[in-house]
Amino acid sequence: MAKSSEESDSIMEENSDWSADDAASSSGLTVASLATGLCYDIRMRYHCEVRPTADVHPEDPRRIYYIYKEICRAGLVEDPEIAASSKPLAPHPLQRIDVRDATEEEVQLVHTDEHFKFVESTRNLPDETLILLEESRDSIYFNRLTFASALLSAGGAIETCLAVATRKVKNAIAVIRPPGHHAEHDKTMGFCLFNNVSIAAKVCQRQLGEMCRKIMIIDWDVHHGNGIQKAFYDDPNVLYISIHVYADGKFYPGGKEGNWDYVGEGAGIGKNLNIPWPSQGMGDGDYMFAFQQLIMPIATEFDPDLVIVASGFDAAAGDELGGCFVTPACYAHMTHMLMTLANGKVAVCLEGGYNFRSISKSALAVTKTLMGEPPARLTATTASNPAVQIVRRVMAAQSKYWRCMYPKAPAQEGLFTDRFHDVIRQYQAKQLYDSYKLTSLWIYRATISKSFENQVLASPNYDKAVPLIVIFHDPPEMMGIHHPITNKLEPHNCWMADVVKEYIGWAIQNNYAIVDVNIPKHLTVDTGIGRYEEEDGDRPTQTEELAGYLWDNYLEPNEATHIFFIGIGDAFYGVANLLINRDSIYQRINSVISFVAENPVRAVASPTQTWLSRWYKDNSLVFVSHVHGLWHNTENRRKPSKRYGRLLQSPKTGLNEMLMHHKTEVCGWIETRVNTRGSSEEGDEDAVEAESKEAV
Amino acid sequence: MAKSSEESDSIMEENSDWSADDAASSSGLTVASLATGLCYDIRMRYHCEVRPTADVHPEDPRRIYYIYKEICRAGLVEDPEIAASSKPLAPHPLQRIDVRDATEEEVQLVHTDEHFKFVESTRNLPDETLILLEESRDSIYFNRLTFASALLSAGGAIETCLAVATRKVKNAIAVIRPPGHHAEHDKTMGFCLFNNVSIAAKVCQRQLGEMCRKIMIIDWDVHHGNGIQKAFYDDPNVLYISIHVYADGKFYPGGKEGNWDYVGEGAGIGKNLNIPWPSQGMGDGDYMFAFQQLIMPIATEFDPDLVIVASGFDAAAGDELGGCFVTPACYAHMTHMLMTLANGKVAVCLEGGYNFRSISKSALAVTKTLMGEPPARLTATTASNPAVQIVRRVMAAQSKYWRCMYPKAPAQEGLFTDRFHDVIRQYQAKQLYDSYKLTSLWIYRATISKSFENQVLASPNYDKAVPLIVIFHDPPEMMGIHHPITNKLEPHNCWMADVVKEYIGWAIQNNYAIVDVNIPKHLTVDTGIGRYEEEDGDRPTQTEELAGYLWDNYLEPNEATHIFFIGIGDAFYGVANLLINRDSIYQRINSVISFVAENPVRAVASPTQTWLSRWYKDNSLVFVSHVHGLWHNTENRRKPSKRYGRLLQSPKTGLNEMLMHHKTEVCGWIETRVNTRGSSEEGDEDAVEAESKEAV
Repeated sequence: MAKSSEESDSIMEENSDWSADDAASSSGLTVASLATGLCYDIRMRYHCEVRPTADVHPEDPRRIYYIYKEICRAGLVEDPEIAASSKPLAPHPLQRIDVRDATEEEVQLVHTDEHFKFVESTRNLPDETLILLEESRDSIYFNRLTFASALLSAGGAIETCLAVATRKVKNAIAVIRPPGHHAEHDKTMGFCLFNNVSIAAKVCQRQLGEMCRKIMIIDWDVHHGNGIQKAFYDDPNVLYISIHVYADGKFYPGGKEGNWDYVGEGAGIGKNLNIPWPSQGMGDGDYMFAFQQLIMPIATEFDPDLVIVASGFDAAAGDELGGCFVTPACYAHMTHMLMTLANGKVAVCLEGGYNFRSISKSALAVTKTLMGEPPARLTATTASNPAVQIVRRVMAAQSKYWRCMYPKAPAQEGLFTDRFHDVIRQYQAKQLYDSYKLTSLWIYRATISKSFENQVLASPNYDKAVPLIVIFHDPPEMMGIHHPITNKLEPHNCWMADVVKEYIGWAIQNNYAIVDVNIPKHLTVDTGIGRYEEEDGDRPTQTEELAGYLWDNYLEPNEATHIFFIGIGDAFYGVANLLINRDSIYQRINSVISFVAENPVRAVASPTQTWLSRWYKDNSLVFVSHVHGLWHNTENRRKPSKRYGRLLQSPKTGLNEMLMHHKTEVCGWIETRVNTRGSSEEGDEDAVEAESKEAV
Repeated sequence: MAKSSEESDSIMEENSDWSADDAASSSGLTVASLATGLCYDIRMRYHCEVRPTADVHPEDPRRIYYIYKEICRAGLVEDPEIAASSKPLAPHPLQRIDVRDATEEEVQLVHTDEHFKFVESTRNLPDETLILLEESRDSIYFNRLTFASALLSAGGAIETCLAVATRKVKNAIAVIRPPGHHAEHDKTMGFCLFNNVSIAAKVCQRQLGEMCRKIMIIDWDVHHGNGIQKAFYDDPNVLYISIHVYADGKFYPGGKEGNWDYVGEGAGIGKNLNIPWPSQGMGDGDYMFAFQQLIMPIATEFDPDLVIVASGFDAAAGDELGGCFVTPACYAHMTHMLMTLANGKVAVCLEGGYNFRSISKSALAVTKTLMGEPPARLTATTASNPAVQIVRRVMAAQSKYWRCMYPKAPAQEGLFTDRFHDVIRQYQAKQLYDSYKLTSLWIYRATISKSFENQVLASPNYDKAVPLIVIFHDPPEMMGIHHPITNKLEPHNCWMADVVKEYIGWAIQNNYAIVDVNIPKHLTVDTGIGRYEEEDGDRPTQTEELAGYLWDNYLEPNEATHIFFIGIGDAFYGVANLLINRDSIYQRINSVISFVAENPVRAVASPTQTWLSRWYKDNSLVFVSHVHGLWHNTENRRKPSKRYGRLLQSPKTGLNEMLMHHKTEVCGWIETRVNTRGSSEEGDEDAVEAESKEAV
């Protein structure tokens, strides 16, 4: 660093003020010197099925015992009966937090009086009644000690959170059951009676006031914590984050409440955050992606006074109900990240998790992390595409409420009225008219989607006795660079790629006729602005209908000497189906050229036209991107069926790149065929095979 | 969770296999039981200026002493001479790591033989020669103990990294000097002689082999670590991440090497990551944003065997050279995040930092975090816009190399040839012709940018004796939803908002004439695809030229009964300058309506046309978005000057929203003026003032 005397002067001045005497105001490690807390009590095992069968209930009383035992055997706690050695192996063992009964008043911070009374009533009911109750309610069982266990579980959560919030311990884990996160204000649900975590959060808020005003509850149980969400849905001081399997509302507890668009309401809007996995099977990479990109930035911005983890371990690898693959190392990483918040005040409370080994290993990893052990390394951290997609969708939705979230979702939706496929097509029409005098063919719209208006352009000689090239293509590719902050697109930062016009130019130059058909990816006008739309499911049928209509009205009746079909992308579907479903059309067609990047390679074959697939194999060029699954599927190692045509591996990836790369090849093939007498002979194919690698 | 007997069976089966006996294989806290290491030696203070002046050099020998003293006084180390009490306050005090001389062979892992020999030679030079050397080199001083100190500093870094990598300590901090990260293979630079961190990394790789193959070096010194970047630029096993002030290459060490597009080369491509702050003044929110969104995801994916921090504390609040505002709490957070990596193997080595208080407090916070103390809470975590912009730019650049980075930058650049402002304008021209018979006015292009082709459209009666409305507007707004994974834009997911056409429709219906002028934001064709482009700087001049051209050729000579100018967005600039620079034009104009969302409100006044601003105040409507700075600037509390026209606060934010909202108002105002005899009277303004709030 170049030193200027002015800079140095001010540094010296600044530094001359400094004396080590005013340093070191806070000495020692005030928090790290405290122990991690552990809450466990054998009496929470008393809640169990009155009449156990071979069909053991997954919410098995032994769950908490095995976790506790695992922690003892790792030498983290002093319990001579279980610990491997009577002396713990950790220099600073876990500190016991005693459970107690939650009071009626505490439970009623979340639950109705009726609900409390109902659970209380079960302690005096005969076995038969208890079994009947089990059948009339959603996923719960009772015995006469259920009430007692539920009170202890809630009380354990309360004491654990209070001990952490008041810094009696550094942080803590509560190995408690029955779980709580599904229990709603007025009902038991999903193995849950009282909502332990919600009750504990409300007690901390009430009892500690400003010192514990903002609470973040992070729920990584594989199921959505509907009860917690409901308890704080309009509370601006409780940020509830749940990461769970949603599966379109079909995964327990079901319904739409677990979806990403449930963001809180009233004063609590933006303080509810669901990350709804589209399916089971999620793993470390997915959870890490969600934590790093979404959960931690928002949590840091929220800046809670206390973090409570509703810690189900049923997303753990090995849990069959959850069907996910989160490793103990990943639980450790998530815990470690949370420990940056609230000056380390993290209280972990057990919720679900049904595989003894998985929950024990996971809980041990979490406990060690709380005690200061660094997380083990993760072997795989790649997020899957479905996970990235949903996390980024949640980010966009939450960007409205959190300054740290980008990109900001676009606003002013009502103003955006013109879809770009129309804008582009009009531009193309004008360009193609100006350059080549292509004009629109009239489409009778009653039978064909009106989205095809303007989509079929033809050169003036389309019905003359010249070679005719019919191109079915997907819309041009767009590229747009969003403003990095506002996320706006601006016309001068957006671009279009449209290589088809190069082909049209070549054809016109050769005096061939052209029919250019653009197949929009959405065929009907709708108003779903603001979310990414998938392709229209109805497109193939509509495309086929259009192809048939064109054939009947404009192609079949004309005098073309040769007809070539070029199908680009998924728009080829229409061509393929025309060949398959219209008898003998193929005899009128010279050949078919098709480009396939991502979509499936279409078979052209028909039970009623036995020669079709042979004809197709002999009279087609099918360029398939080298990254296409076709080339990597071991089942295709054998020579592919002739129904797929003459398959050629393209060294390029995208449709436009492929079109550009193979233009000379395609044009040469067409010119050779035009110049060869007859159309069904194999002609001169050497030119083609020299350049592209044919599948064998 | 609804229990099906099938599920329960498999759980039972799974769980019956489980016995606690095979659990707890790894007992105790193997890493957390180790101490944090501290490397410090008083002999590194011997390197100092031979002839100190009042002008003290910022790289002051006392730097390391004050840091060490601060750590002692916090009770974290046993040193009876300095520690507050003879017994450390931490239950597990810091463990000493002894420095040693780096060997010649070790230094030469990074530096040339000549370079080593040169530094060695300084130990025998007379004072005068040493001072001369100082003047001939970039920011460095020498004395006869410089070489000894530099060897100890490099040796300290080596021993510290080895101790961490071989798990002799949990993690460590090395309080060493002279610093190293600017030193290149063949030169001293920026207070640095030997590149301590680079040497240590190479020694670890060589000495520990596979156990320490992948090393991440994170450099949060406020200056770019050019020496480290160079040492590993083609090394795939060393990920170098530097977060520093860049200021367009004007901040030390200067040049382009610190920019985001230096991503490594050869096998090391993608393993160099620069986060170049555009200016000083960055703070906690900016650093947290970079860490959370960019650094930690990539670091996690890299999965290093060892993390070395090139830890300058000159981005700390209080450091005048750095000019940034990072707090000790933020350094603690960054350290805590890094501790998730490499199973906690983090070695922090001091680089720059020149304010004694700032570096001591920062180093103490880092040390406490390494020892297990949770980071203090951050009061502010909002990233500034410039920071977000650069971080997101780096993310896009790095998305090519890291699976975890989204959005992926668009590929296939060469194919994207058509800019959308052309596509859109052609569409608009077609629409406006079809609906209202607007056609293009011929623009003589030699004097005016050819980007204005097609941008001026007029109704057939533009030269007739009717009221004429001339609209200058920015291009329509676009909205596009990227595919969440591929980041592609597709035409059916992109939309356009264009409210101007509503105004044109109204005018045509009233039989008024219309001239519609679209001002593209880029006036010349260029090929800067792939990065977000700012508006063209030349635009105002070109717009003014166009406005003058239109006035001379199409507006002034015609017979319009009334001329109204509407200026929308920044396109209004052309109108304002026309009024200012052309004498007496304003007398021909009935009035001006302007809409301002983000850009400055333009003054219309001229020293040569004294009545202009009065006229403007009386004959204008200037709608300014309610979020515009104008309304929030205290200097504007007093009545704004009449040169800004009649200012009206709009309740809307964006231009299109404002246009929509005030349409009735604007149309009413124009109609009233058309129906009132004479154009300079104030007319009936009540209708306007009833709806919008005029500035007072």
